Amino acid sequence: MKYCSDCAAPISKAIPDGDNRERFVCSQCDTVFYQNPKIVAGTIPVWQGKVLLCRRAIEPRRGYWTLPAGFMENGESTEQAAIRETWEEACAEVSLGPLFSMITVPHIDQVHLFFLAQMTDGRFSAGEESLEVALFEPQEIPWQQLAFPTVGQTLERYFAGNEHSSSDSATHVFDILPRQALKL
Amino acid sequence: MKYCSDCAAPISKAIPDGDNRERFVCSQCDTVFYQNPKIVAGTIPVWQGKVLLCRRAIEPRRGYWTLPAGFMENGESTEQAAIRETWEEACAEVSLGPLFSMITVPHIDQVHLFFLAQMTDGRFSAGEESLEVALFEPQEIPWQQLAFPTVGQTLERYFAGNEHSSSDSATHVFDILPRQALKL
Ligand SMILES: [Zn+2]
Ligand SMILES: [Zn+2]
Repeated sequence: MKYCSDCAAPISKAIPDGDNRERFVCSQCDTVFYQNPKIVAGTIPVWQGKVLLCRRAIEPRRGYWTLPAGFMENGESTEQAAIRETWEEACAEVSLGPLFSMITVPHIDQVHLFFLAQMTDGRFSAGEESLEVALFEPQEIPWQQLAFPTVGQTLERYFAGNEHSSSDSATHVFDILPRQALKL
Repeated sequence: MKYCSDCAAPISKAIPDGDNRERFVCSQCDTVFYQNPKIVAGTIPVWQGKVLLCRRAIEPRRGYWTLPAGFMENGESTEQAAIRETWEEACAEVSLGPLFSMITVPHIDQVHLFFLAQMTDGRFSAGEESLEVALFEPQEIPWQQLAFPTVGQTLERYFAGNEHSSSDSATHVFDILPRQALKL
């Protein structure tokens, strides 16, 4: 950020009055430009015990498998974002269940949300951002070809919960630090 | 948004290639400026059956009561943001429990998160953004003087859950639309 988006004057870094962090501040009109984490919303789409994954047609991680998910837009709800992304990437219609995981990835300023989701009719196909889309049995998940650690850890916890037939429906809240991100 | 924060050229609205929404796009360097919802993170701080509320010293809703909460910052996790805001506004140390509610307020592009939280030593005092801070018995909650509908609906669900001694620990995921926002 170099120039003020309100008046085009140069931006500098400063701690505004009453604040305790450096912000981007306009040198002329004093507007403060806050930077905040972005939400990525998606689903764990389930059909007859299988999970739907998409192979990415775009960078980052082109060619790797992911749960359908993408940036939440202004004006929509988290649930709407998750349903929309599932439709756009996998052409699958889903009915949402509870929020399964909420994962902060602090080094890239993102919070990933995955909702449990029942596919309504079992139909799917590759959307524009997917090379292919497929249903996977638990033992077929391509663990070594997953695109993002948030997807891997969400799937691990999902299958672990199914095995233990846990009645605990609390959202899995955790963080993924840079070292873990590199591992996957 | 009027000027590009990278090159200071005028900004226009356009649908970028491969996108389906109007974005702010630089007329000169083609940078796309995405606008995304912001996360507000906070807690339901509990001590001996009472809930800690803060009376706001700042706008909006100065003088009204709220759960401690504020904008999540880049570089921190949702849990860290909730703990930090509770410390800054109520000078209370808490140990986080599960994510209790996740509420989208689409007309102001915010997602509010409230974690259940045990106060660790029962100590609290007014932080800089609070006029006063106090523990409330369930029947003492100042329902007519709450600052925000997300706070009111989180507290309603919290006390309803306690009465029914529900074992369901799923996160309450819902939205607050403009009409509801005006009601409270
Ligand atoms: Zn300016
Ligand atoms: Zn530009």
